Amino acid sequence: MREVGIGIAGFGTVGGGVLSILRRHARDIEARIGARIVVRRVAVRDPSKERAIDVDPALLTTRYQDLLTDPGIAVVVELVGGTTEAFELVMGALERGKHVVTANKALLATRGEDIFRLAVEKGVDVYYEGAVCGGVPVIRTLREALASDRIDSLHGIVNGTTNYILTAMAEKGEPLARALAEAQRLGYAEADPTLDVSGGDAAQKLCVLAQLAFGARLRPEDVLTEGILGLEPEDFAWGKEFGYALKLLAVARRCPHEERAAEEPGPARRGADAKPGQARDAGVPNPPDQIEARVHPAFIPAGSMLAGVRGAMNAVLLHSDALGPSMLFGQGAGAMPTGSAVVSDIIDLARNILSGSPGRVPLPPAKPLVSLRPHDEIRCGYYLRFTVKDVPGVLARIATTLAGRKISIAAVQQREHEAEGDPVPLVFVTHQAREADLASAIREIDAYPTTVAPTRLIRIESV
Amino acid sequence: MREVGIGIAGFGTVGGGVLSILRRHARDIEARIGARIVVRRVAVRDPSKERAIDVDPALLTTRYQDLLTDPGIAVVVELVGGTTEAFELVMGALERGKHVVTANKALLATRGEDIFRLAVEKGVDVYYEGAVCGGVPVIRTLREALASDRIDSLHGIVNGTTNYILTAMAEKGEPLARALAEAQRLGYAEADPTLDVSGGDAAQKLCVLAQLAFGARLRPEDVLTEGILGLEPEDFAWGKEFGYALKLLAVARRCPHEERAAEEPGPARRGADAKPGQARDAGVPNPPDQIEARVHPAFIPAGSMLAGVRGAMNAVLLHSDALGPSMLFGQGAGAMPTGSAVVSDIIDLARNILSGSPGRVPLPPAKPLVSLRPHDEIRCGYYLRFTVKDVPGVLARIATTLAGRKISIAAVQQREHEAEGDPVPLVFVTHQAREADLASAIREIDAYPTTVAPTRLIRIESV
Repeated sequence: MREVGIGIAGFGTVGGGVLSILRRHARDIEARIGARIVVRRVAVRDPSKERAIDVDPALLTTRYQDLLTDPGIAVVVELVGGTTEAFELVMGALERGKHVVTANKALLATRGEDIFRLAVEKGVDVYYEGAVCGGVPVIRTLREALASDRIDSLHGIVNGTTNYILTAMAEKGEPLARALAEAQRLGYAEADPTLDVSGGDAAQKLCVLAQLAFGARLRPEDVLTEGILGLEPEDFAWGKEFGYALKLLAVARRCPHEERAAEEPGPARRGADAKPGQARDAGVPNPPDQIEARVHPAFIPAGSMLAGVRGAMNAVLLHSDALGPSMLFGQGAGAMPTGSAVVSDIIDLARNILSGSPGRVPLPPAKPLVSLRPHDEIRCGYYLRFTVKDVPGVLARIATTLAGRKISIAAVQQREHEAEGDPVPLVFVTHQAREADLASAIREIDAYPTTVAPTRLIRIESV
Repeated sequence: MREVGIGIAGFGTVGGGVLSILRRHARDIEARIGARIVVRRVAVRDPSKERAIDVDPALLTTRYQDLLTDPGIAVVVELVGGTTEAFELVMGALERGKHVVTANKALLATRGEDIFRLAVEKGVDVYYEGAVCGGVPVIRTLREALASDRIDSLHGIVNGTTNYILTAMAEKGEPLARALAEAQRLGYAEADPTLDVSGGDAAQKLCVLAQLAFGARLRPEDVLTEGILGLEPEDFAWGKEFGYALKLLAVARRCPHEERAAEEPGPARRGADAKPGQARDAGVPNPPDQIEARVHPAFIPAGSMLAGVRGAMNAVLLHSDALGPSMLFGQGAGAMPTGSAVVSDIIDLARNILSGSPGRVPLPPAKPLVSLRPHDEIRCGYYLRFTVKDVPGVLARIATTLAGRKISIAAVQQREHEAEGDPVPLVFVTHQAREADLASAIREIDAYPTTVAPTRLIRIESV
C-alpha cells in the first residue's frame, strides 16, 4: 500500500487528538484514500513529559529542523502555536516543497500574506481547517462548496469561551464575573481569558474567514473589536423584552460600490442602477467593493438559528447570492474536534499528493479584492441604554440630540426608578444609523448634567 | 485562458439556475479556477419554449446524444429527472469518459450501484451535491470534511415541503389539509404532493446520505417510511406540553456489533468490552455494523438546533466520533440554491480536470460496509396517544399490556373528556423500547373494546 509521510510539530491537546484519530480511524482512512498515512516524526519541547497518548520514543525529536530535513515527510503539521517559531517552521517546510497543515489562526491572521506567497511560489498547499471553529468545516465550505457563489455577509459565533459565558448570563441571569469563573473551573476559559473576552481571538478568526469569503486582506487590528466585558445582566433582560438574544458576533459584510454610491447622492452614483456586484457596461471600472469587519456583542432575533447556538458551540451563518442563508454549526475547540479538522486536511493533502494535483485549489489571491470600510461608516441598528436623572425633559433632550444626527428611533422604554432620587434606565432602539453619528450623539448625551453613567451601546443585527 | 466544456441536459428550474449562476459569477469563477467554464450544448425537450433565461439558439438541441458525441464536452450535467432517460444519459456519458454532475436523487437511490461501478471502471467522477438538501454542502462535507471521522448517526430535515407544512401546523395550529393547501398556493408543494408527504422523497435522500456516511447500500424500499398524513393539531399540542417539536426526520444510526451483542446476553457478547466500532485483537472478525434507516415524524426537544429549522429550510445533524455533534443548515430546493450546488460540482470537476486528477476522491465503495438493521429491532422512545372510553380500569389495562412487553413508561397524561360519554385521549411517553414490542402492544390495545380509535404512535428522538 502507498504511504504518505507526515511530521507533527507540537504535541499538546490538538496534537494528541490528531494522533488518536489517525490511529482509531486508520482502517477507514486507508479505505477512503487507498493509502496509509504514516507519522514519521513528532517534534516536542520536552520528550520526557507524560502524555495521554503513547508515541514511539524513536519518533520524538526536540528539533523542528528534523521534520524539514526528513525526505520521507511530505506534509508538516504545525501545532506549535504562536507566531515566531511556528512561522519559521511553516516557511521552512514550504521552502523545501513540503505541504503544510496548520491550526494556527494567529499565524494566518498576522503572517498569512508571506505564507501564501511562498506556497504559491513553491507550488505546494497550505490547509488550515482547524484554525477556525475547530471541526466545523467552514474553511472547506468557503473554499469549495461556495466557490460557485458570491458571499454577501458572514455572521459567526467563533469563540466558544465567550458564547459559554453569554449563554450562562442569559439563562441563569448571572453576572459576567461569576459566569467567567465557572467557565474557567470547567476548562472553557483559560486562566488568563483576555484574548477570548476582549474579542481578539474572534478578530483573528474573522481575518482568516474574510480572506476566503471576500478576498479581503485584513489584520486583527483592522477589525472593529469590542469584547464582552461590561455586559450586565440587565442588558440581557432588556434584550429579552425586545425579543433579542445577546451574542458575541464576528461580522463581515460586503458593501457593494452601488450601495455606497446610493448613500452619497451626486456624480458618485454612476452605475447605481446596476444590480449590486454585477458587471456593468460602463467604460470606467468601479472601485472595489468594501467590507465591514467587526467583532462585538450584538442583539439578534431570539428565534434565529444563531440565537439557538448555546454553550461553547460555534456557528457561522452565511448569506450568499445564489444559496441565500446557510449555516454551519459544531464544536469549535477541543482535542478531538480540532484534531478531526487537522486530519481532514491531511487526508485532503494526501489525495492531492496521490493524484499528483497539489495546488488543485488555488490559495487566496495575493491582491485583495475588497477594501475595508471605515468603521465610522458602518450602519447598524443600535440599542442604547442611558442612565439618567429622573427629571423632566431628559427623554425629550436625548430624542432631540438623536434626531439632529438623523438617528431614527424604533422603540423606547423607560422603567420606574426603585427609590426616589435614584437614576432611571432609559432604553432606545434605533433604526439603521451611521456608527459615527451614534458615537458623536453618545458623546454629547454623556456630557449632559442629567446623565449619571456612561451610555451602553449594543449593535443589533437582523440575522 | 483554458476552458472546460460542459453540456447541460434538461433546462427546467435548476437548469435555469445553473446557467444564471455561471453567467453572473463568471468572473469570480474564472479567478478561482484559472479557467473558463463554457456551456457547449443545452439539451431540451422543446426548443421553442419561452424561458426566463436566454440561451443562444445555436446551443440548443433536442437530442441528448449530441452531448455525448461532442468531444468538446468534458462534463455532462444531468438535470433531466426521472430514472429512465436520465440513466441512459449518465451511463452514456460515463461510457465515453465524460464526468457527470447530477442533482437526481431518485436516480442515485435506485441506480447508483451501476452508475458508480461504471464511473470507477472508466476512471471518471460523478458528483451530486444538488441531489440532497439543495445548496447545503452535505455531500461534500460527508465525502471530504468528515473523511477523518466515524459517523455514528445522521438526523436530517431533508424535505422542505413537509417542514413547511409542519411548521405551519405547529405555529398556527392549522390542520394538515389547510397547511398543505397553503404550501401548494405558495409553490412549496406540488399539485400532487404524494412523494413529499409520504416521506418517499426523504427516503430517497436518506439512501444517498447513508451511502456516504456509513458505506450503506440501501434502496428507498429498505427504509422504514412513514409520512406526515394523519398528524393532527392535537399531536402538536401534546408535544408542546412535553417540551417537544414535531419534525419529519430522516434518520440513519449506526448500531455497532457490540451494542447489539449487549442486548443479547450469552456467547454473542464476545468483544462487548471493546469500545464501539474499535478494532479488537480477537482473532474472529466481528460481523459488520448494522444501521437503522428510517423516515418518520418525530418528536425532538423543543430547544434543539433541529427544532429551530423552520419553514422550507433543510438541515442535517451529524454525530461523529471525533467531532461530536455538527449541523448544516440552508435552503434545500429552488433554482438558485440547487443551481449553486450543481455549479460547485462543475467547479470541483473542472479543478480535477485542470490538475489532471479525476478520481481524486474515490466514489463510495462497491461493497457495503454495513447491513440494514431489521425495522423490528429499532429502539426509540415513543409517544402513544390512545383514544379510549372513559371507564374505570382502562389506564391500568394499557399500562399492564405495555409492562408485559418490557415497555417502560416515562410519562402519562390524561385529559378530561369534553362531554359525558365522549372518548378521552390518554397519552403515554415511553423510555427506549423495541419497535416490534410496541407494534404488538398497540395491536393488542387497539383490539380492546374500550379503545375507540386507532392509537397514534410518534417516535421520539433525543437529538
